[in-house]
Amino acid sequence: MRKVDPDKYEAKRQQILKAAIACFSAKGFHRTSTAEICAEAGMSPGNLFHYFPNKQAIIAGIVDAERRDTAAYFADAIKADDLFAELLGFMDIVLALAADPAYARLALDISVEAMRDADIGQRVARNDAEIQAALAALIAEAASRGQADPGLEPAAAATWIGALIDGIFGRVAVDPTFRPKDQAATLRLLITRFLGPRGR
Amino acid sequence: MRKVDPDKYEAKRQQILKAAIACFSAKGFHRTSTAEICAEAGMSPGNLFHYFPNKQAIIAGIVDAERRDTAAYFADAIKADDLFAELLGFMDIVLALAADPAYARLALDISVEAMRDADIGQRVARNDAEIQAALAALIAEAASRGQADPGLEPAAAATWIGALIDGIFGRVAVDPTFRPKDQAATLRLLITRFLGPRGR
Repeated sequence: MRKVDPDKYEAKRQQILKAAIACFSAKGFHRTSTAEICAEAGMSPGNLFHYFPNKQAIIAGIVDAERRDTAAYFADAIKADDLFAELLGFMDIVLALAADPAYARLALDISVEAMRDADIGQRVARNDAEIQAALAALIAEAASRGQADPGLEPAAAATWIGALIDGIFGRVAVDPTFRPKDQAATLRLLITRFLGPRGR
Repeated sequence: MRKVDPDKYEAKRQQILKAAIACFSAKGFHRTSTAEICAEAGMSPGNLFHYFPNKQAIIAGIVDAERRDTAAYFADAIKADDLFAELLGFMDIVLALAADPAYARLALDISVEAMRDADIGQRVARNDAEIQAALAALIAEAASRGQADPGLEPAAAATWIGALIDGIFGRVAVDPTFRPKDQAATLRLLITRFLGPRGR
């Protein structure tokens, strides 16, 4: 048996996930075949199977990659001087992602898959719980520094930030006139009035 | 040919929609057969066919019934003395609907169907556009009476109320710890700070 170089193995996995994201974003999850993912990644189906046994495992890989990205993002954000500015900056990133049709389509496909498949559902719920915890920690620390309203319960405030994030993707899905970036100023005003330092 | 009594015809349609909602809420849209809807409505498949040619037409009927209910609701709401209180009251209704597992499941099924089926998608988008217009009208009139912040563009404010509504159903779908009614006070605070009369 060949020895597996962990770095090479991980690099190959990332290459497949990147190819899969490109395919799913263009055609949707259900209309993409593993053969198309292989073609995009430039590898044989037999080789792909060493990394992901099926399409479901690829989706799980995408969800888990997002988990690592989000954890890294918030680990960095909490070190900033102005945590309220960090929160607003995070929402700008969400608006930019929602404005990207490829990302928005993939996000919608994943949430539908989470309803159908218990394993994907659990992974998505775990990511969501971690985002909620990170937002609550950011808001709590901001409040302790006088950068956010200390009168709000951080977890409750994080819940409504989470609802706004879900709602941004909801608007993109249902309202063809909704342009996420055009609404950035009103969202900033909403969040600032809701939980910014009072009197801002 | 028999003459059709329009009132009886409409009553029968409503009876079928009610039976279908009960079935869909219990088992989901895709796992419900038309035979089960017939059994629930107490009629033969041949008879059902006179009212709805297929399951898709029944979903369309449910979406259109919601359209009429929403129009009637807002036609009434705009007559109230305190329009800001009406807006808060509407959000309480949304929270109560989201807290009802049967309603939340049906709402989720319909939004998935809206993505797959162009006709359902158009009907859902039309309902959404009408809710957005009704919210914007309510907010504009509230602002003109000093019951809401006149500094906000009503359509932009309505967009974010719409995002919050979508987000409430998003939270229900992904976060098992989210209890819509427990979050009512924080939502009222958010909306009041966002667009209530300034200084409230």
